[in-house]
Amino acid sequence: MGEDSAIIEGTEVALDEARLEAVLEAVEARDGARLTALLEPLHPADIADILEQIGPSERLDLLQLYGREFDGEILSEIDEGIREEVVEALPPEILAEAVRELESDDVVDLLEDIEEPQQRGLILGALDQSERAAVEQAMSYPEHSAGRLMQREVVVAPLDWTVGQTIDFLRGADHLPDQFYHVILVDPRMKPQGYVTLGRVLSSARDAKLKDITEESFRTIQATDEEADVAYMFNQYHLISCPVVDKGGRLVGVITIDDAMNVLDEEHEEDMLRLAGVGDESSLSDGPLETAKSRLPWLVVNLATASLSALVISAFEGTIASLVALAALMPIVASTGGIAGTQSLAVSVRALATRDLTRANAKRVILRELVAGVLNGLGLALILGVAGSLIFGDIKIGLVLAAAMVVNQIVAALGGVLVPLTLDRLGLDPALASGTFVTTLTDVMGFFAFLGLATLVLI
Amino acid sequence: MGEDSAIIEGTEVALDEARLEAVLEAVEARDGARLTALLEPLHPADIADILEQIGPSERLDLLQLYGREFDGEILSEIDEGIREEVVEALPPEILAEAVRELESDDVVDLLEDIEEPQQRGLILGALDQSERAAVEQAMSYPEHSAGRLMQREVVVAPLDWTVGQTIDFLRGADHLPDQFYHVILVDPRMKPQGYVTLGRVLSSARDAKLKDITEESFRTIQATDEEADVAYMFNQYHLISCPVVDKGGRLVGVITIDDAMNVLDEEHEEDMLRLAGVGDESSLSDGPLETAKSRLPWLVVNLATASLSALVISAFEGTIASLVALAALMPIVASTGGIAGTQSLAVSVRALATRDLTRANAKRVILRELVAGVLNGLGLALILGVAGSLIFGDIKIGLVLAAAMVVNQIVAALGGVLVPLTLDRLGLDPALASGTFVTTLTDVMGFFAFLGLATLVLI
Repeated sequence: MGEDSAIIEGTEVALDEARLEAVLEAVEARDGARLTALLEPLHPADIADILEQIGPSERLDLLQLYGREFDGEILSEIDEGIREEVVEALPPEILAEAVRELESDDVVDLLEDIEEPQQRGLILGALDQSERAAVEQAMSYPEHSAGRLMQREVVVAPLDWTVGQTIDFLRGADHLPDQFYHVILVDPRMKPQGYVTLGRVLSSARDAKLKDITEESFRTIQATDEEADVAYMFNQYHLISCPVVDKGGRLVGVITIDDAMNVLDEEHEEDMLRLAGVGDESSLSDGPLETAKSRLPWLVVNLATASLSALVISAFEGTIASLVALAALMPIVASTGGIAGTQSLAVSVRALATRDLTRANAKRVILRELVAGVLNGLGLALILGVAGSLIFGDIKIGLVLAAAMVVNQIVAALGGVLVPLTLDRLGLDPALASGTFVTTLTDVMGFFAFLGLATLVLI
Repeated sequence: MGEDSAIIEGTEVALDEARLEAVLEAVEARDGARLTALLEPLHPADIADILEQIGPSERLDLLQLYGREFDGEILSEIDEGIREEVVEALPPEILAEAVRELESDDVVDLLEDIEEPQQRGLILGALDQSERAAVEQAMSYPEHSAGRLMQREVVVAPLDWTVGQTIDFLRGADHLPDQFYHVILVDPRMKPQGYVTLGRVLSSARDAKLKDITEESFRTIQATDEEADVAYMFNQYHLISCPVVDKGGRLVGVITIDDAMNVLDEEHEEDMLRLAGVGDESSLSDGPLETAKSRLPWLVVNLATASLSALVISAFEGTIASLVALAALMPIVASTGGIAGTQSLAVSVRALATRDLTRANAKRVILRELVAGVLNGLGLALILGVAGSLIFGDIKIGLVLAAAMVVNQIVAALGGVLVPLTLDRLGLDPALASGTFVTTLTDVMGFFAFLGLATLVLI
């Protein structure tokens, strides 16, 4: 960066593997000074990542060695899976100090993942009275609502203010939020009527009226809105910050895009894990027992649904007994159907999440999946049919394989879109366990179509 | 909103189903005036959604009726799958006008998805010379790089400026970016040295030095950095905007969080679709033929890998012939393994994407998956073993089922984490087709373990 780089202080460095190893060495050597020197230039989010990635005993050692320097922001960055553990490991006075450094929305976020009453008491007790009141007020909104997500500190101006009045007010203000991007215009009853970007305030003449330089993008969020809807809104409309109002339309807070981005990311994680049948509370820092527990439910469900396939197959035991090769061939049809169903499902769940799949195009998308299923079914049937006929020297085996493949590809394509659409219409999460439903469908239909046709044609 | 709501103009309404239906009716009735009245209060992103959701012929009609009012921003919001179609449907002079409304980074984004030379010519031809030069310069950066993503208009100040000088400069500036959140401090060679939030500029005294009120969060991005890394950085460090520099460290542009959020969302889509074996260029507005084509490759691969399972089973035809019930039971072990592998895989791919799974904890995560696999394997084995013994009245069948289940759950758990980790170490996308690999593994091992044990114990 040249000789000027020293002019401005406080630039952070990125976390790399060399530093991570050095941190682990310092922890092992119980060298607190070296540890602090290594962690000091890192962003709290990177320190939180280190805490998540190392083992439980190293984590405890690190917290003891680093305790005195422990920054509040690390607490709010840390994965929910180890929050209680970290909070417990910190000496009470350091925890209290760390909590006092946080904005009220971060304290709310922290409290959401801590159930232990003594720890909750410690955290709430660390706050001064007005801060505690703010946190308790926020906790009164439903979980995963805009009210929990918002920060309560807002920058507002009356409708008739000029740019000059606004700047003078901001210069004289005692306390401003850490980050703010708009001045919100409110009427005398605190109802937001528009907002002005700070860029417009800075670049306009002092006598310009705020209400003449408002943004078209202005909209408001209800405090009870779902945070997933908030994230969608920010992404769809390219919002940077958005006022939050209560039922009466009065301003109660503001949500900024970095929080919305975080929610979007968490929603992604939830979709991906749910689709795969993993409990969405699971975390990479979970131990083996918690990991096993978060996955067992859908495995047991699958055990039950797989028994359906077994029942279907056992109905055709006579057929298999007279031509054992069928037992070897039947998983081909079932498994290719499973892949096709998974493909169609992933596309549909994603499209529902981004609200691209709606009543307006559901019919067209279903029809498209059907036609695509027929096309790929025919293509795969051709390959499998020819190969089967040649290998077994019997064109009838090839025909049965081909016909079963077409049937199952169609079932897969339709199942992949109809299962999540139906869950969505029922008000359920379309990602929830759709995978298990769809693969059960393609397994059962794959075995049934293949063995049924084989019974008719071959036996 | 009460009587004040009319004071500020231009607030947009949200798209709902009633409006969508009204739009479709207006298109069908070829009522251009009504269509314009319905679309006018919508955000361009919502108009783009309408265009994506309706059928191709309705889309053409809508574009013809609405053409004259067509806003440039709709073009940049529209899904890449139908961009060429929309560009082609617009009369050249309306296209030219729409393109001229866009910022240079949006034109770049538009051009990336348009391959037809005549259309590219029309778009580039619509720009004035300096704008065209800016676009061509941006196109010289690699695809999916920070250089493509950034906007080139930046707001900079010399290191020694005061707040007052900055405000006076901004007030007098001819042209400022639509959105900016920081004033970037540069040295005489245009190397960024820090930045100041607009909030700090507004709330500080006129004689305050910019370099005394810079942000700790300051960091820079290389123009050649991958956009996925940029999105990670914004999410990890809660950045709002970030300067982009060339190889020499000179400022060439700035990336804002709304673009980073968009990239994060696209990366997630890519992960989800790739994991399911769908080509990531696919789009909901694709027709059936394109849809079939984007899915066929992995279906054919699966056809080949499923043949491996068939080979394994056929090696045990003698065993199956002497106990046909085995054919019905074998998919239970294989399919439960497939689910467990998918679970482990989803967790690992997600953790690699968020960089939570690193060299520092890979061993611990692998060990955790192994232990969790053993635990769930034992749990499932107990259920299946008891059920099998009771149903078939033969404890040996129960034991074979149970043992095969434990083996396959372990294979699934390890495969789910080792396959993506290996792909990642090889520099490949860990999501790419891991699903097919892992389910092949669990199918083959499931059939082999079950039929192999059955041959040893039962026959």
